Amino acid sequence: MKNPKVLIIYTGGTIGMINDPETGALKPFDFEHLYNSVPELKQFNYKLEAHSMKNPIDSSEMNPSIWADIAKTIFDNYSEYDGFVILHGSDTMAYTASALSFMLSGIKKPVILTGSQLPIGQIRTDGKENLITAVEIAGKLDPAGEPMVQEVAIYFEFQLHRGNRTSKQSTSNFDAFISYNYPLLAEAGVTIEFNHAALLRKGFQKLEVFSNFNTKVGLIKLYPGMPVAAYAPIFDLSKTEGVVIESFGNGNTFSSTELENKIDSYIKAGGLVLNITQCGKGSVAHGKYETSMMFVRLGVIGGYDITSEAAITKMMYVLGRFSDRDERKQHLQKNICGEFTQI
Amino acid sequence: MKNPKVLIIYTGGTIGMINDPETGALKPFDFEHLYNSVPELKQFNYKLEAHSMKNPIDSSEMNPSIWADIAKTIFDNYSEYDGFVILHGSDTMAYTASALSFMLSGIKKPVILTGSQLPIGQIRTDGKENLITAVEIAGKLDPAGEPMVQEVAIYFEFQLHRGNRTSKQSTSNFDAFISYNYPLLAEAGVTIEFNHAALLRKGFQKLEVFSNFNTKVGLIKLYPGMPVAAYAPIFDLSKTEGVVIESFGNGNTFSSTELENKIDSYIKAGGLVLNITQCGKGSVAHGKYETSMMFVRLGVIGGYDITSEAAITKMMYVLGRFSDRDERKQHLQKNICGEFTQI
Amino acid sequence: MKNPKVLIIYTGGTIGMINDPETGALKPFDFEHLYNSVPELKQFNYKLEAHSMKNPIDSSEMNPSIWADIAKTIFDNYSEYDGFVILHGSDTMAYTASALSFMLSGIKKPVILTGSQLPIGQIRTDGKENLITAVEIAGKLDPAGEPMVQEVAIYFEFQLHRGNRTSKQSTSNFDAFISYNYPLLAEAGVTIEFNHAALLRKGFQKLEVFSNFNTKVGLIKLYPGMPVAAYAPIFDLSKTEGVVIESFGNGNTFSSTELENKIDSYIKAGGLVLNITQCGKGSVAHGKYETSMMFVRLGVIGGYDITSEAAITKMMYVLGRFSDRDERKQHLQKNICGEFTQI
Amino acid sequence: MKNPKVLIIYTGGTIGMINDPETGALKPFDFEHLYNSVPELKQFNYKLEAHSMKNPIDSSEMNPSIWADIAKTIFDNYSEYDGFVILHGSDTMAYTASALSFMLSGIKKPVILTGSQLPIGQIRTDGKENLITAVEIAGKLDPAGEPMVQEVAIYFEFQLHRGNRTSKQSTSNFDAFISYNYPLLAEAGVTIEFNHAALLRKGFQKLEVFSNFNTKVGLIKLYPGMPVAAYAPIFDLSKTEGVVIESFGNGNTFSSTELENKIDSYIKAGGLVLNITQCGKGSVAHGKYETSMMFVRLGVIGGYDITSEAAITKMMYVLGRFSDRDERKQHLQKNICGEFTQI
Repeated sequence: MKNPKVLIIYTGGTIGMINDPETGALKPFDFEHLYNSVPELKQFNYKLEAHSMKNPIDSSEMNPSIWADIAKTIFDNYSEYDGFVILHGSDTMAYTASALSFMLSGIKKPVILTGSQLPIGQIRTDGKENLITAVEIAGKLDPAGEPMVQEVAIYFEFQLHRGNRTSKQSTSNFDAFISYNYPLLAEAGVTIEFNHAALLRKGFQKLEVFSNFNTKVGLIKLYPGMPVAAYAPIFDLSKTEGVVIESFGNGNTFSSTELENKIDSYIKAGGLVLNITQCGKGSVAHGKYETSMMFVRLGVIGGYDITSEAAITKMMYVLGRFSDRDERKQHLQKNICGEFTQI
Repeated sequence: MKNPKVLIIYTGGTIGMINDPETGALKPFDFEHLYNSVPELKQFNYKLEAHSMKNPIDSSEMNPSIWADIAKTIFDNYSEYDGFVILHGSDTMAYTASALSFMLSGIKKPVILTGSQLPIGQIRTDGKENLITAVEIAGKLDPAGEPMVQEVAIYFEFQLHRGNRTSKQSTSNFDAFISYNYPLLAEAGVTIEFNHAALLRKGFQKLEVFSNFNTKVGLIKLYPGMPVAAYAPIFDLSKTEGVVIESFGNGNTFSSTELENKIDSYIKAGGLVLNITQCGKGSVAHGKYETSMMFVRLGVIGGYDITSEAAITKMMYVLGRFSDRDERKQHLQKNICGEFTQI
Repeated sequence: MKNPKVLIIYTGGTIGMINDPETGALKPFDFEHLYNSVPELKQFNYKLEAHSMKNPIDSSEMNPSIWADIAKTIFDNYSEYDGFVILHGSDTMAYTASALSFMLSGIKKPVILTGSQLPIGQIRTDGKENLITAVEIAGKLDPAGEPMVQEVAIYFEFQLHRGNRTSKQSTSNFDAFISYNYPLLAEAGVTIEFNHAALLRKGFQKLEVFSNFNTKVGLIKLYPGMPVAAYAPIFDLSKTEGVVIESFGNGNTFSSTELENKIDSYIKAGGLVLNITQCGKGSVAHGKYETSMMFVRLGVIGGYDITSEAAITKMMYVLGRFSDRDERKQHLQKNICGEFTQI
Repeated sequence: MKNPKVLIIYTGGTIGMINDPETGALKPFDFEHLYNSVPELKQFNYKLEAHSMKNPIDSSEMNPSIWADIAKTIFDNYSEYDGFVILHGSDTMAYTASALSFMLSGIKKPVILTGSQLPIGQIRTDGKENLITAVEIAGKLDPAGEPMVQEVAIYFEFQLHRGNRTSKQSTSNFDAFISYNYPLLAEAGVTIEFNHAALLRKGFQKLEVFSNFNTKVGLIKLYPGMPVAAYAPIFDLSKTEGVVIESFGNGNTFSSTELENKIDSYIKAGGLVLNITQCGKGSVAHGKYETSMMFVRLGVIGGYDITSEAAITKMMYVLGRFSDRDERKQHLQKNICGEFTQI
């Protein structure tokens, strides 16, 4: 059996950070420093190659154009490698993983994002374990000789998550990520135990890359007493073509003629509105309570248990890929790559 | 020892809901129905009285004016009762608990919010246990004969949380609430075990009620690729006087001249900006990474580990109570009633 | 669709306990008291009937002869009812559930054991919820119209466990039971969510009852420095015919000629030795470490991830049912009703 | 401030294991191999020294005589070092930590046991992180300049536990240890957060070492239907001088004249019996249920929430140290070094 070939793509992040001698704040270092820091990787029978994005960034600076670069890098190297590991800051990793899952929706090889809460160069670090196990997973085959993971995933602190199901739940614990509404894809202990029932398997699909995201996407989180008028421009087709609303509980809202009119004219003018819950766990259930009936009447789409991160990037994808309103709506309602569970 | 006197205030919510025979959707019922449904309460040696808000509502409809009514009801009955239980829908319970903690900041008697995921009239319900234990806690004294709980708290599913530390984390599990950044105040098992070290104790403070909230408060959650221009009016003093930003990780943002200018002129014109993290667990740490330096430079206030619910209601409180910019700022930076932990 | 018929069998336990007016200690009360205490049960469209064991007992007094009575009661009423709920003290519930799973190994209807940490007659009690939901589960059909649960299970604190996978993990928390090595069969929240992949389904098997347990079973838990000689009589065929050893980690032991000789002659004389781990989670893995090789050499049987409760009762069952040594051994090694997972 | 000096004592265990080329099974390697494997340790400003036990062993082979060697090593080097790290197999680590807490009961410097589930030489390993953080903790001072940890503790998988409160709960997860009844002493994330309220502080006590354990200690775990006669020799003063009983729930037993007589004559003849619960969480509460009254009548000592591991080693200590029956009893009932919580 041939040795797995894995491409490590460095985008920046704590995993490769050092202290700025002047300000003392942390800043990204170059990729070679990282690679030298993990001599353990030489022990693998894997063939590892490294590719650093031109300008490694703190992940707060991540944006759709870099997502496109990452997706292109994977696409260009797709036939060459058995799997891909993306080193990424944890702050926006859930957004990037979600975005890539839509950009690379036909993918059948592992794309594993990982990073760390402590720099890999420090004596106490979660970075080494994260990198080593992410690489091992990226080269893993299932008993049929196919890649074990055929989707975009996040590996962090002994857990493998579906990428578009994750949120960063903690700023400083090592277990920074959580998938509130989807089981783990794998857990690493003495062995790496895959949850086969949870792994994504697609029928015949060719990998294409679509990275021309349309970022005219707004996000509104409801709260009692909110001054609805201040959010008016979010529902302006010159500013946005789609809006994600983080509503209460199972998709509920307060009554508000102002909000109702706003959404009504926005949708009638061609805008899309996707309703998700601001709770981590659980699902929008349109019509369960009277307080979600307004959304139903207006034609707001219920996003089930999709994360905020996946909702925003899916909207960017759908708006970028389709121009017809009905087609956009239809794709928003459709489970594209495991991002929600219909109830 | 005299019997504790507890006032139960019904505001609406699933705990008292029934099915609308026409649409099948759930709608609030009147309070007497609820009280008859829990004959167990008669077993207490407590003196229980009930007060229903004039128009019980689904908690999605909750707003600052009803918060004021609740606070006034507690204030007016403060000397008469040993504790207060507020029955409330779970959707906005964390907002209400946060709001009341600021409205009643000098309070030294228990105000326990509770509710349920299933109506109390159903055979399977979490409502009875929640109500019964909330009432028991509301009448509890500590060994010194003082009220055990001297603050606003949420009781749900065997756990007592500080009210302004909670978020609704799940739309449908019985354990709907979580305090990401503060220990439980108590856990109910065979006995109710209080976490004495975590309970709030204040020095001499007289109860006053302040309920004149200023709702000119905006909320923005950052995401990669966001169209900053669409959020411009949020930073318009005619629309808002304070803005809460849910940033990345430890309080980080992407670089954006547009956003920087917007915030800069807003703050210079007298607006307040409070930076909190969009992660559940953890704290804003201004200056830890370069990507939070923009906020530091602009005079954005770091909210530490405050929840979104507490940040919004605290801003409404501070804007309503103080008109001087420096005084507002000072109070935002100050821990008023246990809502954050400074690092 | 006809209404489900469920038989509730009361064996004793806290769920039906009252205080002894003389000593103040808790003692079991009669079943009618319990049934009157849960008027909510009348709301079910179920046909419920109750059967009390002649002498309700504290579950510490439970023994194989009462297990036989319970099994017989179920067998005699098997065609009459759709499901069975057994009210039982929590102390030995995991032993009883394990024992019944072997006694009723061909069963295809639900047998749900439940109880409580607090008496059902107290104002704060976990007993009502446990009883109500256990009854609901006992009458539940799957989409094919077959019983949803076709095995012996424990329902406690919102969780349904496979009976022979449980241990009592806590003396006083409401969540008293845990299945260290097997997923939950169901979780009760707003709805009861069954984990279909985890539910036991058997091929064609007729229900027979086998309750003639042979209790000549010893149990030894290893610890450093133990005086092996004191345990000699456990390996005496006049006293026991099978011994369960709770060993270290993955099935390891210290070296001891004395212990080795003891086990060797015991097995050669016809005794059976089953090796399980004293850790809650995980499995015996004979041969993984040198320190388990002694057991392998001697012909000790590895019990994989079976619980102590299931190992003891399975041994009693196997010794009672089969007299041939090889047949006994073969059945110990075999997964009879979901009690272990082979690795 | 001077650099901390830490002594690493290697006793064997997975953390230093390699594969036997002949059998494939794992066996312990020599300590130098281990030390070379963690070059990261050189980054510490600590002065580290290493000491290997003469014959490194698999921890299943651990026994009171090696405990004595370890205790002596610490005693002999006590003034020389600021802290001690003991590398130990995980199988019996909880027993060793408990034993050392009694052997070194006056200790005021950190003794941190650690190990791993995977050998430190493997590419995926929990050993490095465990070792590095254990060393860091062993050199940590509190704000007053005193050692932060002044007791025997176990560090494993980001958690620091009081040694005599731990049990090995899992054979193969990285989080192998649990303290069912005591809070964590510290958690390691981006920083190591100590739980100051939980750390042991003693008044004036000089370190003495007492390692002359008396191993005439028996252990019996109750189960329904157990053949009491087979356990008779456990209650034989020529075989044991103390017996630990793992009873049901809050310290309950079945009624058994045979068992009662056995215990009665054992205690009357000078034997000691300590009653602990076989549940992980919770405490023996003598007299709470009628089923524990037999133990009360006979003069069995209630062990509260002590672990099995601590109960056994405490009994060995007490029997070794004191010969008078009353003095033995008194010390068993006394909290010596944080091993139980009285209720």
